Amino acid sequence: MRVAELRVMGVDPGLTRCGLGAVEGRPGAPLNLVKVGVVRTSPDDEIGARLVAVEAGIEQWLDEVRPDAVAVERVFAQHNLRTVMGTAQASAVAILCASRRGLPVALHTPSEVKAAITGSGTADKQQVGTMVTKLLRLDAMPKPADAADALALAICHVWRGGVQNRLAEAAARAAAGPGATGTTAAAYFRDRAGYSRGRKQ
Amino acid sequence: MRVAELRVMGVDPGLTRCGLGAVEGRPGAPLNLVKVGVVRTSPDDEIGARLVAVEAGIEQWLDEVRPDAVAVERVFAQHNLRTVMGTAQASAVAILCASRRGLPVALHTPSEVKAAITGSGTADKQQVGTMVTKLLRLDAMPKPADAADALALAICHVWRGGVQNRLAEAAARAAAGPGATGTTAAAYFRDRAGYSRGRKQ
Repeated sequence: MRVAELRVMGVDPGLTRCGLGAVEGRPGAPLNLVKVGVVRTSPDDEIGARLVAVEAGIEQWLDEVRPDAVAVERVFAQHNLRTVMGTAQASAVAILCASRRGLPVALHTPSEVKAAITGSGTADKQQVGTMVTKLLRLDAMPKPADAADALALAICHVWRGGVQNRLAEAAARAAAGPGATGTTAAAYFRDRAGYSRGRKQ
Repeated sequence: MRVAELRVMGVDPGLTRCGLGAVEGRPGAPLNLVKVGVVRTSPDDEIGARLVAVEAGIEQWLDEVRPDAVAVERVFAQHNLRTVMGTAQASAVAILCASRRGLPVALHTPSEVKAAITGSGTADKQQVGTMVTKLLRLDAMPKPADAADALALAICHVWRGGVQNRLAEAAARAAAGPGATGTTAAAYFRDRAGYSRGRKQ
């Protein structure tokens, strides 16, 4: 039995640079890069025009990438007081765009992402970028850092999804009793989470 | 010459209760209530579903009210740390909805609104509600407070827009030279700000 591949789009929210990165894979297997980039808006523009531009960029990505799930960095009000409002607003647009399409949205904290990618929740951007480059077998580190961070979010979600898959599988087995072997964790997880386009079984 | 009436929709952003209120009027004349209410979403729902519901509610209001401008409370990261993220995200949705339609969006701080409505930037909710009720000649104070606050934002914008009108008028006269009398401030302001549906001249 193989767990289904997930195509996940990560969003590192921001108004000046909104990092976007999509990967495909499953836990325990090499991950593949689908697309990476940023949507930029000018600090000279009005907030409304900037949000409209971020929405248009994310919509275009969703049309093209067609992810199974979207992972967005969870924004905290505690740090980066100067930029947190723009970050929160850009994250709202990303969550809105994904939810309007019925895509599952997961929020991961920066330390969850760092821990998933590097083993340390306090790793720096360079370490995260290095691991993203290695895990996706890229020739060079994705630039700018927002793009690499978006890929890290997507990778984190594939792996955490994997953990959830295995937990769900165990729960399904327990619920079905000792003789049951029929239901795959992937199918169970898709049903639970609303995933509808698993690419492989 | 009379300054054009403006129909303004105010938004007191929030996820649990997003206050919406529309008024019509011009500085120095009685204001009229157009519509008041709230869009509610459940704290038990996922953030994505809540943002989609707020968007749907605001879109329905914009279709019905057809405002000339939208006034949204400016959110600061400094206070209400616990709720500020939801407030910022709801405000992003409101700004996005208005900007997608090409409507001018104005952000006013809570103290600007309080000062405009009551004369004091530190007035409490009761004072603001009392003045909103009086200014719109209502029988009772709009409830909940979020709805009254949205009306206060809209009233503040009509009045501040009036100040901008008069400044624009002065600028237009100065630019046109001493003999010019043809252009009304309202027309000038509409052209500048993208207002396209002035209801009266």
